[in-house]
Amino acid sequence: MSDDIEKSPEAEAVGRPDLRGSSPGEADTHADLPFTGRRLRARRVQIDTLREAVAYLRRDSLICRSEGFAAQTRLQLEYRTASVVATLQTVTGDWVELDEIGLSEAALAALDVSEGEWVRVRHMPPIESFRHVRGRMFGEAFTPAALDEVIGDIAAGRYSSIHISAFLTACTGNRLADDEIISLTRAMVATGETLHWQADCIVDKHSIGGLPGNRTTPIVVAIVSSQGLIMPKTSSRAITSPAGTADAMETLAPVDLRADEMRRVVDAVGGCIVFGGAAGLSPADDILIQVERPLDLDSEAQMMASILSKKLAVGATHVLIDVPVGLTAKIRSQYASTLFSERLRTIGRALGLEVSTYVCAGAQPVGRGIGPSLEARDVLSVLQNRSNAPVDLADKSVDIAGRLLEMGGKALPGEGQACAHRILSSGLAWRQFQRICEAQGGMREPLVGRHSKAVTARHSGVVTAVDNRHLARVAKLAGAPAAPRAGVVFEAPIGTHVVSRQPLFTIYAESEGELEYAYEYACRFPAIVAVGES
Amino acid sequence: MSDDIEKSPEAEAVGRPDLRGSSPGEADTHADLPFTGRRLRARRVQIDTLREAVAYLRRDSLICRSEGFAAQTRLQLEYRTASVVATLQTVTGDWVELDEIGLSEAALAALDVSEGEWVRVRHMPPIESFRHVRGRMFGEAFTPAALDEVIGDIAAGRYSSIHISAFLTACTGNRLADDEIISLTRAMVATGETLHWQADCIVDKHSIGGLPGNRTTPIVVAIVSSQGLIMPKTSSRAITSPAGTADAMETLAPVDLRADEMRRVVDAVGGCIVFGGAAGLSPADDILIQVERPLDLDSEAQMMASILSKKLAVGATHVLIDVPVGLTAKIRSQYASTLFSERLRTIGRALGLEVSTYVCAGAQPVGRGIGPSLEARDVLSVLQNRSNAPVDLADKSVDIAGRLLEMGGKALPGEGQACAHRILSSGLAWRQFQRICEAQGGMREPLVGRHSKAVTARHSGVVTAVDNRHLARVAKLAGAPAAPRAGVVFEAPIGTHVVSRQPLFTIYAESEGELEYAYEYACRFPAIVAVGES
Repeated sequence: MSDDIEKSPEAEAVGRPDLRGSSPGEADTHADLPFTGRRLRARRVQIDTLREAVAYLRRDSLICRSEGFAAQTRLQLEYRTASVVATLQTVTGDWVELDEIGLSEAALAALDVSEGEWVRVRHMPPIESFRHVRGRMFGEAFTPAALDEVIGDIAAGRYSSIHISAFLTACTGNRLADDEIISLTRAMVATGETLHWQADCIVDKHSIGGLPGNRTTPIVVAIVSSQGLIMPKTSSRAITSPAGTADAMETLAPVDLRADEMRRVVDAVGGCIVFGGAAGLSPADDILIQVERPLDLDSEAQMMASILSKKLAVGATHVLIDVPVGLTAKIRSQYASTLFSERLRTIGRALGLEVSTYVCAGAQPVGRGIGPSLEARDVLSVLQNRSNAPVDLADKSVDIAGRLLEMGGKALPGEGQACAHRILSSGLAWRQFQRICEAQGGMREPLVGRHSKAVTARHSGVVTAVDNRHLARVAKLAGAPAAPRAGVVFEAPIGTHVVSRQPLFTIYAESEGELEYAYEYACRFPAIVAVGES
Repeated sequence: MSDDIEKSPEAEAVGRPDLRGSSPGEADTHADLPFTGRRLRARRVQIDTLREAVAYLRRDSLICRSEGFAAQTRLQLEYRTASVVATLQTVTGDWVELDEIGLSEAALAALDVSEGEWVRVRHMPPIESFRHVRGRMFGEAFTPAALDEVIGDIAAGRYSSIHISAFLTACTGNRLADDEIISLTRAMVATGETLHWQADCIVDKHSIGGLPGNRTTPIVVAIVSSQGLIMPKTSSRAITSPAGTADAMETLAPVDLRADEMRRVVDAVGGCIVFGGAAGLSPADDILIQVERPLDLDSEAQMMASILSKKLAVGATHVLIDVPVGLTAKIRSQYASTLFSERLRTIGRALGLEVSTYVCAGAQPVGRGIGPSLEARDVLSVLQNRSNAPVDLADKSVDIAGRLLEMGGKALPGEGQACAHRILSSGLAWRQFQRICEAQGGMREPLVGRHSKAVTARHSGVVTAVDNRHLARVAKLAGAPAAPRAGVVFEAPIGTHVVSRQPLFTIYAESEGELEYAYEYACRFPAIVAVGES
């Protein structure tokens, strides 16, 4: 063997390590890692991969051979001051040139690069912070510094979906202690913008979700801000539900406002209902949500950090959290809700937030619509005091708005609800809501899917229970929230007397395929709306 | 609003659900879910995505619009009797026709389809079994039936990498109880082939890894099988290490043998060293490993199930497990190794396997090479009784082979080691090894990377410690195991007196880029090989 290991002349000839920047303490920073970056011409390959940046390189290119790049290698791409981590897919044909790098739509957008420009390609540095996640799986608590590192890397796009999934799972199942949640919240706030206001009292609300429909927010903001309370409300898009408040609100007005645009709206009309992700508040949260969604996962720790980070970033001082309790809601017992409320209050206080909870029954949907447009139509009917408006949605919105009016000193204790009711029934809330929509960019009419089909009672009887999880899944299979006009209209609340073949709920979809798919699924679970034999 | 929800004539006109096959008990099977499958012509897009099947559809195609497909949608593709779950990426240009479906190399291979053939495209059914994973995160134990469902779905390719990552994380950190590991092992065996042999005693060995180098297996198989003991050894490729036994053995002979080919080899020469994945034994394990790798994760429960499932599938009756113990090995203390050994024996017994452990020091690499070819060269030098053969590797191989000879009744208790030593030094083991390589398809010469660079001592002194994890990472950054000739040659075992600038280890790579990258990384961690001031 000519190149015998022990006697390699090359090995003896090369020499002393370069010791610059090699102290162990620096191992945790990425910026100064050495690279042998190469430049390649950007090529738009017209492939949409959603959030994930993907790069396409010829397998027989010099760079793949010299750098040892192969499919699934994680690369760092740089153009001017922008950089993004991309997953490599190698091209075995010749539709990409040897000196080109194909870029997915997400990669192009992240780099803000045009075709033909030169992009620098580097090995992605190892994700040093992932050792903290690995440690957490084995029971080592996260330190504040560890969470700063992990969340910073996530916000910078260094974690692949696989790594994010492991992080989320490691945080799930009530494993994080209060101080870890506090640190996680602070780390998430630090990744984005934070808003500051002149007023002493900035109110906010949040629902922990788990209940289909339940779109109280637009109504509450309208009532509360009509009284001069500042309520700069940011909402998320759906995590595991068929619609988030931002999804529903978007069918009524633009919600993708930047932080400065949001500030202008709130300065003008006292409140807003916008998408938090577009405002750049706690952006790490939005990345985490993208992976929580396919996992259909929403851990208590993540939930608290997600909620509180958005509230802190938006500059809130007084927050009311809507906690639906029910067998198929996220919180399943009164006891669990008490623990959850206590914990949220404690953690909120440590972060300088006054948190109250509004615990309510979560046995069935609130309102009738489930899905962006269908929920928006419920909101409008309540604000417009229509005769067919869902009473449960109106009542709950008035309750929450009343609590906030009291917290913000705009109503005496015990008088908030009556005050909120007057504001709604007088039309004041409706006029305020229109002002908000106009300030956000103009009001729209929510349209519903052209294709619909009712799921009906198999026999006469009384509705005894609703399986919210399966009902939400039907709405998702029908296309919600990606298809805003899709979803379900729930027509038989618990206690309703129904006759055989009477519709229990109606599925709406934007395509026949989705309608059929959701309908067939619904038929496989006849207990979604349980009808007791009478 | 003309299409008022409550009064939709369509909703009233459509009717009764089709009740066939809609009993709740059937919700857990996927096969009979209703679909509106469409057919599209297969198109090879010449993109390699490694394991993950990817499908490319025009965003403006009828199927995307009618079915609501969008980027990241999971699709079920079918061709004749084959089916695969693929992730969708949408094409915004016209390089895929409207009636075509672009397929990645993995998707083409899984379907075994040619260009122009018609592929059926369906919505992927919901992964019902993932509810068990979600439950496990919250502390609900896995039942045997739950693990059968989860592992069955994983083996069938229904879990995305995100879902697999969550499953692995939920199993990590000593969370699984013994009976869960037993069920997990059985579920994994059930996903693949199982071998049966005529003999009463089938021996096997396994190293839990964590120690660079340590390539005893080829030597042990040669010694043991030369005495007529049956040893049908399957090995894995690297999980978190720079080389698995299969990776190292592949530089010496073909290892991708099917189960029938493996049987032919063992029938002919009494033993083999092949890749377990190619033999179709416990294939779910191989899928899990693909996600464990980027996570750099190897949980105790997964490790046990992985080891024992391979041993059961291969038909072993007596198994010796090599458990290196050291501060930077996978098992870090003598106490932990005792617990681990006890647990493995107990679980093995429940599964009908006689398991013994061989606990040994794991403070530094065994042998000199780290990386497929470099380890293979160590193996050859030991088998050939060369003067430069690593003594530690030879000694450990003889110890393990001796224990197996005793377990298999080919040596009296206490005499196995001396017996094994005679077989090795007489050249009998070397001749048997050549027979095995020839039977597997022909012996090869392992070559090492052309590019090399030594990391040297900064001052004179005595080597006091080795950081195996960082040393392994250097070998991985140099390209191992994907680049089989890459890795590290460790030249300064603990206790070695070194002078300033003397090589501590030498890095080998197949490309300059990888060499530089690994070298710079090594220089940032000067304590990889710690030299005490003298």
